[in-house]
Amino acid sequence: MAATGEAGRDMVRNKQVVLKHFVVGAPKETDMEFREGKTSLKILKGAEGAILVKNLYLSCDPYMRGRMREYYESYIPPFQPGKPIEGFGVAKVIDSTNSNFSVGDYIVGLTGWEEYSTIIMTEQLRKIEILDVPLSYHVGLLGMPGFTAYVGFNEICSPKKGDYVFVSAASGAVGQLVGQLAKLHGCYVVGSAGSTQKVELLKNKLGFDDAFNYKEETDLAAALKRHFPEGIDIYFDNVGGSMLDAALLNMRVHGRVAVCGMVSQHAVSDTKSISNLYTLVMKRVRMQGFIQSDYLHLFPQFLQTMVNLYKEGKIVYIEDMTEGLESGPAAFVGLFSGKNVGKQVVHVADE
Amino acid sequence: MAATGEAGRDMVRNKQVVLKHFVVGAPKETDMEFREGKTSLKILKGAEGAILVKNLYLSCDPYMRGRMREYYESYIPPFQPGKPIEGFGVAKVIDSTNSNFSVGDYIVGLTGWEEYSTIIMTEQLRKIEILDVPLSYHVGLLGMPGFTAYVGFNEICSPKKGDYVFVSAASGAVGQLVGQLAKLHGCYVVGSAGSTQKVELLKNKLGFDDAFNYKEETDLAAALKRHFPEGIDIYFDNVGGSMLDAALLNMRVHGRVAVCGMVSQHAVSDTKSISNLYTLVMKRVRMQGFIQSDYLHLFPQFLQTMVNLYKEGKIVYIEDMTEGLESGPAAFVGLFSGKNVGKQVVHVADE
Repeated sequence: MAATGEAGRDMVRNKQVVLKHFVVGAPKETDMEFREGKTSLKILKGAEGAILVKNLYLSCDPYMRGRMREYYESYIPPFQPGKPIEGFGVAKVIDSTNSNFSVGDYIVGLTGWEEYSTIIMTEQLRKIEILDVPLSYHVGLLGMPGFTAYVGFNEICSPKKGDYVFVSAASGAVGQLVGQLAKLHGCYVVGSAGSTQKVELLKNKLGFDDAFNYKEETDLAAALKRHFPEGIDIYFDNVGGSMLDAALLNMRVHGRVAVCGMVSQHAVSDTKSISNLYTLVMKRVRMQGFIQSDYLHLFPQFLQTMVNLYKEGKIVYIEDMTEGLESGPAAFVGLFSGKNVGKQVVHVADE
Repeated sequence: MAATGEAGRDMVRNKQVVLKHFVVGAPKETDMEFREGKTSLKILKGAEGAILVKNLYLSCDPYMRGRMREYYESYIPPFQPGKPIEGFGVAKVIDSTNSNFSVGDYIVGLTGWEEYSTIIMTEQLRKIEILDVPLSYHVGLLGMPGFTAYVGFNEICSPKKGDYVFVSAASGAVGQLVGQLAKLHGCYVVGSAGSTQKVELLKNKLGFDDAFNYKEETDLAAALKRHFPEGIDIYFDNVGGSMLDAALLNMRVHGRVAVCGMVSQHAVSDTKSISNLYTLVMKRVRMQGFIQSDYLHLFPQFLQTMVNLYKEGKIVYIEDMTEGLESGPAAFVGLFSGKNVGKQVVHVADE
């Protein structure tokens, strides 16, 4: 497949997933398109400090929706229409002009949705040292979603043994770990999810004490009351909207709400405004938004803890893997209707 | 006016303000009625551990609205229709079968809206030791509202010198102190209030850096943007509703929202639901409801601090005093349309 380019350098095909235009509402597959470019397998002269990588796994994360609109007030700038979208990925270094990375290294960090990427902003990359777990876990269990669960639960929820913990989107990339961490902490944990299959997974595979399918409930507040007759100490909110409003009505005195996934929901699926905030005062509830990147000093500790728990068989991690870059847009879009079962990853290439 | 009762004991008139029925929406004067009862000036036999008090000052507080409806999930039970309403008051002990209180003592705590009250639950009372400030300040500056401001600002807002602080209902019983405490802490402070007179008071008497009349603003978010071009670090929320929603849009990264007065607003004036909670994640904001009574261990420290600040002339306290128990219902109802200028107190009797 290699061709010889103008400068006599080997050129190969580089398929890309490009954002066609800024997105309104829920993202659709047609908001993205494929482009077949070419790339050299050598870094262009002048690009000192860069690396050229072959992308192996790409992560589908709801926050990416926030980068598909023209909004500059967030913690991360929007994608540029006409250019490949970006996300967390696991990749192999195939050329490097950066002394921190060598050919053959595996890295995790922001990369392009394409076969090969030249990465100039290498500060945000991490060289993967832990190679005896599945490589794709570095965008899940050991990556941003895992760290989000770890930070959110430990730093934001102030958990205590015996606490009643509710997790929404509980079988998702973050929720499945929050529930398992809460169980390991000695909490009573109930999760909500959107299908019978996911509910079974929560109860039988992920060790939740109980779980329910929110789509089968006509009254979410009543469903929560049924599962938490004593009320909720900790709500780990991955969805916002109606579920948040219902959870507020069921909080216990001095309860904590960790607000995690609402960005993704904003202007997407459930934009119901919130009517029950008065319970924050009634029950003296703390509600806190957070982003994992504010806690990067805890990352080494997180990595060690999670790897150990995984190797000891104390936590499991469920991935939903699709095959090929071509499957990426549908996999990403599927997040917003809950098609994925577990962490959604796209397998782009073998090593 | 004294009469001789059946048991040969002196009986006097005891005017009372009675709740007629549970209240729907904003409270009206007609939700209460006057009743002219009689009381002995001696405690009935068998009531060991009680005190009989002459009520001097009664406090009008928005939270009392919450006790006017049939809702048992709050931190305090509802009033009983047909019985005198209760609130914080300053009173003088005229008889006692309780070894902790002597005739002639001044007390502050929950008492009835009536001329004389027999108080059995004396654990909640505090004997007034500080007598060289106006007695009525014990339900304001040195009472629940003052303590609410102190706890809310110091314990919930995590204030730092130079922080941009916004206070709503800023000339009210709590807000006026939050603003002054924030100024003493080295913050930049802007308040909102509902009249030109109150805005002037905030700027010229209470030392706020700036203030605005929210009733003159068509776009609250724009008004806040104008006053806080850099954004808000701390929002001390006394009102909820539209102002909270507008403030959320203007929070800075790692901002804090202390949620204080929303209970009173619930089902009263501004029940607008909240649409901008996604900013909690975007800006990593902490939003926390609180109640002063969770922090009673800090009360002695609060009392000492506030008395000192007051005596040193570093804080002032503005009261809106009405005359006579008869003025009570109108004074209370007036809170919900912002008629009061400063802390609303009813002067029932002289010592």
